[in-house]
Amino acid sequence: MTTMKTWNLKSRPVGAPTLENWELVEEAVPTAGEGEYVAQTLWLSIDPYMRGRMNDAKSYAAPVAIGGRMEGGTVGRVIESKTPDIPVGSHVFHTGGWSTHWKATPKGTQIVDPDLFPLSAHVGMLGMPGMTAWAGLHNIGKPVEGETLVVAAATGPVGTMVGQIAKAKGLRAVGIAGGPEKCAYAVEELGFDACLDRNDPDLTTKLKDAVPNGIDIYWENVGGPVFQAVWPLMNPFSRMPVCGVISFYNATQAQTGLDWGPRILREVLTKRILMKGFIVWDYQEQLPQFVNEIVPMIQSGRIKVREDVSQGIESAPQSLIDVLNGENFGKKVIQVA
Amino acid sequence: MTTMKTWNLKSRPVGAPTLENWELVEEAVPTAGEGEYVAQTLWLSIDPYMRGRMNDAKSYAAPVAIGGRMEGGTVGRVIESKTPDIPVGSHVFHTGGWSTHWKATPKGTQIVDPDLFPLSAHVGMLGMPGMTAWAGLHNIGKPVEGETLVVAAATGPVGTMVGQIAKAKGLRAVGIAGGPEKCAYAVEELGFDACLDRNDPDLTTKLKDAVPNGIDIYWENVGGPVFQAVWPLMNPFSRMPVCGVISFYNATQAQTGLDWGPRILREVLTKRILMKGFIVWDYQEQLPQFVNEIVPMIQSGRIKVREDVSQGIESAPQSLIDVLNGENFGKKVIQVA
Repeated sequence: MTTMKTWNLKSRPVGAPTLENWELVEEAVPTAGEGEYVAQTLWLSIDPYMRGRMNDAKSYAAPVAIGGRMEGGTVGRVIESKTPDIPVGSHVFHTGGWSTHWKATPKGTQIVDPDLFPLSAHVGMLGMPGMTAWAGLHNIGKPVEGETLVVAAATGPVGTMVGQIAKAKGLRAVGIAGGPEKCAYAVEELGFDACLDRNDPDLTTKLKDAVPNGIDIYWENVGGPVFQAVWPLMNPFSRMPVCGVISFYNATQAQTGLDWGPRILREVLTKRILMKGFIVWDYQEQLPQFVNEIVPMIQSGRIKVREDVSQGIESAPQSLIDVLNGENFGKKVIQVA
Repeated sequence: MTTMKTWNLKSRPVGAPTLENWELVEEAVPTAGEGEYVAQTLWLSIDPYMRGRMNDAKSYAAPVAIGGRMEGGTVGRVIESKTPDIPVGSHVFHTGGWSTHWKATPKGTQIVDPDLFPLSAHVGMLGMPGMTAWAGLHNIGKPVEGETLVVAAATGPVGTMVGQIAKAKGLRAVGIAGGPEKCAYAVEELGFDACLDRNDPDLTTKLKDAVPNGIDIYWENVGGPVFQAVWPLMNPFSRMPVCGVISFYNATQAQTGLDWGPRILREVLTKRILMKGFIVWDYQEQLPQFVNEIVPMIQSGRIKVREDVSQGIESAPQSLIDVLNGENFGKKVIQVA
């Protein structure tokens, strides 16, 4: 009997998650019922949204149940099949979760070609982060050549794509990232026009210098002090796709102090700013359009993605903790097998 | 020599404006130069945006200069003309300002027919407030039959139109207004489904009861406690046209306490809310479409507008102070002659 290892949610975190919030369970690999297949996980994606699934709170997706398997995008190889749609030996993308194996029906499963792109790309630039970046720009940001875009968490998987798509469309792209090494990468490797360290005490001043024509698109991934530095520089008719607010994910209590509510509403009005939240699946029907646009950019080398790879399913909890602290450098993926 | 009376801005208010901020000046009525005309003001519109023009702050329009004429929409009769486009005796709409007379060129002047609608309608339901309501709904609110709309300042000129257009399109329309008399008018005369007193200590609870299916469109005119009561009830994919934040216009310092910034950003994301500020002239090219849609609604009696009329140019400053305090009941207009 082959066994599989799965991370289940043991308790809901209060504030930042700790390793104690998960439990690694070992059990027999399931067998496929009629119409099902079983896959061995090769790659598991680790993404900030997973923090939200650990809360028992109303959000855009149901929380993970206590004792339930952590959710996550996976690429795997089919090892058993009782459905003609997903043959044994094929490579598949699915949200298989934090486990060495998964069992599913063909619904929501996508066969991928291992010769066309590296398999991990299907949880990266060709997958959820890539589609997120493209869909948020296409539907909300609406970039226009010559405009200026600022993206927070610039070297994360979504930020990387946002900045590079913006550059491909002829915008000035300015990143904000955690530390000089990430910033150097954004400018030298990804071709951002500038990148600022989010911990720089002079962030506000330096950001102002980096956007001489103001900001037309602010891609919001983080909230908090970065948002506060960006907001005064927003141009009339600027757009703000709200993709994440990672700095608030671990918050346990409401913040007090200066109330930004009135200021946000007032400047949304006077500058006619568009602010809109979204998640990638809101635009699922545009997936073919995304693939058509993005594949040539990847093939021509115009869009690059750096991966931050951990080994083994055991590393999943620490990997998520690192991602929430901004300690990953590139798209966090786990090579499970 | 005929004289005219004009209100000039004497000083910039700190907080709420007082009568001392303006000066009434009497001088000779100007004569028309080549290509110009002179009109006698019949109706002057008083609107909350005028408070913004009194500040020396960057906004969507330039401030009124100290010693300069207060801005305002006017309907008048042409008494002298040296342009064939605007003959003597014709009735015209223009932003003639707080004065008994104005001089202008045909640019930005519109001849109106006094037999088709009451002249004051051109600064009301057929004018800026009407177009504001229609354009904000058409471009941002995007009402869908069966949805629920909430509008603040519901018996003001814009709110009145917003609620009635929403009803005409088959939505549930809930107003928030200042006091039981205004609320009764909204429900009994204008056909709102419900209207709540903004000063009701149970506003939050009553609003919840009034919108059993949540809120799909919140028309923001006010900000402050009304916004805070509305925000938790916003539905996924709801829209929020930000048309005004009257409760902040007189603010002299930033508010402190609970910081609504993180909450706004977080819920914009999780509920995928669209928030967008606008002013009516952003959609100026849609004026013919507005007229085509709105005129039949007015002619059929589906849209009614109540006016709150003051007499004489002398009453302009107090009228604006009243409007900023929500003491008008209906569209504030001044019958100048």
